[in-house]
Amino acid sequence: MTATTQLPSGFKAGGWNAGIKQGQNDFGVILSEEPSPAHAVFTRNNFPGNPIIVGREHIAGGLLQAIIVNSGNSNVATGPEGLALVREYVAEAARTLGIRPDCILPSSTGVIGRPLPRSIMLEACRQIPERIQSADLESFSRSILTTDRWPKQKSIRLQSGVTITGVAKGAGMIAPDMATMLAYILTDAKIEATTLQSLLRWAVDLSFNRISVDSDTSTSDTVVLWASGRIGPEIRLTEQERKQLGQSFPWEFQADFLADHEREFVAALREICLFLAGEIVRDGEGATRVFEVRILGARNRDEALLLARSLVNSPLLKTAIHGADPNWGRLIMAIGKVFTVPVAITDLRIFLGEMELTKDADLAQLRRYLENPLILIQIHVGQGPAAERMWGCDLTADYVAINALYTT
Amino acid sequence: MTATTQLPSGFKAGGWNAGIKQGQNDFGVILSEEPSPAHAVFTRNNFPGNPIIVGREHIAGGLLQAIIVNSGNSNVATGPEGLALVREYVAEAARTLGIRPDCILPSSTGVIGRPLPRSIMLEACRQIPERIQSADLESFSRSILTTDRWPKQKSIRLQSGVTITGVAKGAGMIAPDMATMLAYILTDAKIEATTLQSLLRWAVDLSFNRISVDSDTSTSDTVVLWASGRIGPEIRLTEQERKQLGQSFPWEFQADFLADHEREFVAALREICLFLAGEIVRDGEGATRVFEVRILGARNRDEALLLARSLVNSPLLKTAIHGADPNWGRLIMAIGKVFTVPVAITDLRIFLGEMELTKDADLAQLRRYLENPLILIQIHVGQGPAAERMWGCDLTADYVAINALYTT
Repeated sequence: MTATTQLPSGFKAGGWNAGIKQGQNDFGVILSEEPSPAHAVFTRNNFPGNPIIVGREHIAGGLLQAIIVNSGNSNVATGPEGLALVREYVAEAARTLGIRPDCILPSSTGVIGRPLPRSIMLEACRQIPERIQSADLESFSRSILTTDRWPKQKSIRLQSGVTITGVAKGAGMIAPDMATMLAYILTDAKIEATTLQSLLRWAVDLSFNRISVDSDTSTSDTVVLWASGRIGPEIRLTEQERKQLGQSFPWEFQADFLADHEREFVAALREICLFLAGEIVRDGEGATRVFEVRILGARNRDEALLLARSLVNSPLLKTAIHGADPNWGRLIMAIGKVFTVPVAITDLRIFLGEMELTKDADLAQLRRYLENPLILIQIHVGQGPAAERMWGCDLTADYVAINALYTT
Repeated sequence: MTATTQLPSGFKAGGWNAGIKQGQNDFGVILSEEPSPAHAVFTRNNFPGNPIIVGREHIAGGLLQAIIVNSGNSNVATGPEGLALVREYVAEAARTLGIRPDCILPSSTGVIGRPLPRSIMLEACRQIPERIQSADLESFSRSILTTDRWPKQKSIRLQSGVTITGVAKGAGMIAPDMATMLAYILTDAKIEATTLQSLLRWAVDLSFNRISVDSDTSTSDTVVLWASGRIGPEIRLTEQERKQLGQSFPWEFQADFLADHEREFVAALREICLFLAGEIVRDGEGATRVFEVRILGARNRDEALLLARSLVNSPLLKTAIHGADPNWGRLIMAIGKVFTVPVAITDLRIFLGEMELTKDADLAQLRRYLENPLILIQIHVGQGPAAERMWGCDLTADYVAINALYTT
């Protein structure tokens, strides 16, 4: 594998300023030369944005030829007019590009509840053929950002000649907007449709679904996997192989049961998703450090995940980590407050990095460890064979400032 | 009803400095002249403190003659030695006072995981008879505080001659300690045992179980209702009356089905619990304002409560309220992220105080409203007849500072 950021063959991408935001890129497009297989997963929030309503309809066909994204306005809670506008600018883009409207996936991120400017969106769609000529992946990456501190992208080139490229934006807001996670993963590999869907769900589950900045679920979250199919041999997993993949250990990857070109692709997909998810939490609002929580010895993965989630979302643990405070009482509390998973305190073993928390633990050494930008917390609960992990970030005064003091 | 803070007949209370903390009161006692009916509810955290383990055993008998509380050390996660020490100092107090050890309820609040100083606790217990003579309720109230900004107490004197007095401490920490809620409600009313248990559960459920400072559940929470029985007529509710009480509307209280002396008592118990719970959230760490969330039109109370809880625990909503920011996108998000209770956005109506949030709402007026110390958020979800409410507080940079920067 080599890692430079480039587009897989068959794709073009670009972004520019369309006039929603001042000065910065706010409109981005990814195009493929022909309709090609794609799948997407969306927010579970019960009030999805209007682009998500349309995107769900279009992705059901399994083919994409364009993704159109704007930042600066999420087009959420804007009523029937907001939904009609999505259909209108998607139709405009389809006309301009000479492609099918139902092969276009729209995304929006930004403020909630304000009308998306109609003339700006229609004009931007009409300009796609001209503007895309001189644009590049970097300009697209910047066009989807809100208050992210840096763009997030990664490419992996496989020995088979396949390229996988992921681009994402994370949770950020300075205006009183809604944080949104958007991630687009492109590849020129040839992937059978059911395999593509299943690989995306698997990879999202172990990465994007394992991070939490502040426990609040956006109305616009979208992750897309899109394969132009230029480079074979085809990746096609059997039902049994897909099932085995789902049972793999959370922080190791073997998958010896797959063919070489499949294993190489799946490993790279996993790596891209883990990288982008990690970048999102590292760029979490106000965050200064990331912590990974590993639960071991749980009865099953659901219970392990409940425990991990309680830890990454605990304000008291998040502030203790911000203060590099080896305050293990808060770890105990956060494990104990998962009422449905009682753990015997005598079975509990807690490690910060390699150091076990015991009565005789060296507090100064623990404190030094907690000053690292990436912290590992491992909890053994002594009940069974299952493990899970999640990532969180510290809770800081900057988080409060970003979300309270910088108001409309 | 009149409201001055005084002890009901049959009780003595006092607190003093025993030497766990420097200078401040850290040891408190409430005594009754004879064993009298009491009930207690405790934290649901799976790692309860050692005093709670003993308290659960003792309260099972239904009678109390003493409550012994210390602050500065919670005696949680201190192993078998910590549990043995509770039994030892409770026995010492029983010997000194000439009462039964199983009529003593111990409580502790403060740092987790450090041994409670044995000689200090034993000596403090031996001093109870002498120190209680010159002590008063005020000195007890102060002895249970940790980083509370003010003591929390309230008395109500009923027309029947009965007094109800409640004392509580809230969530506060400067040292890296565990927040704990303790509340003791004393009365000289004569209450039948089953009625007493049921009234406590009912009153706790509508008050203490409806507040959240930071969604973290302490390992030491305790609420006690204790009745010396000096003043009749007896309060004795039938099973049917207890059930009807449980179905009462969350923010109105009628209970016309009760006898006068019973209704007067139940109303006052409700008022004391609501007052103390309100004081705890108002004194929440770093809090500058309290918000009450009312959900109306839910299918049932469980679903209403899920929605209310999502709102009071949302960091994005809590920071918006801190910034007095009428950012209703965050309200939408927090309702929508309760995946199990889908609400149609067209059925949703949101009020801040008396003002409905609509596209044409006056943002400046909403902002002025949000600058109040107590904010009412009402959400109609249009699905049924049920309602619930909860109280939360804003999330501030002081919360982060208290919990991160003031470390060991």
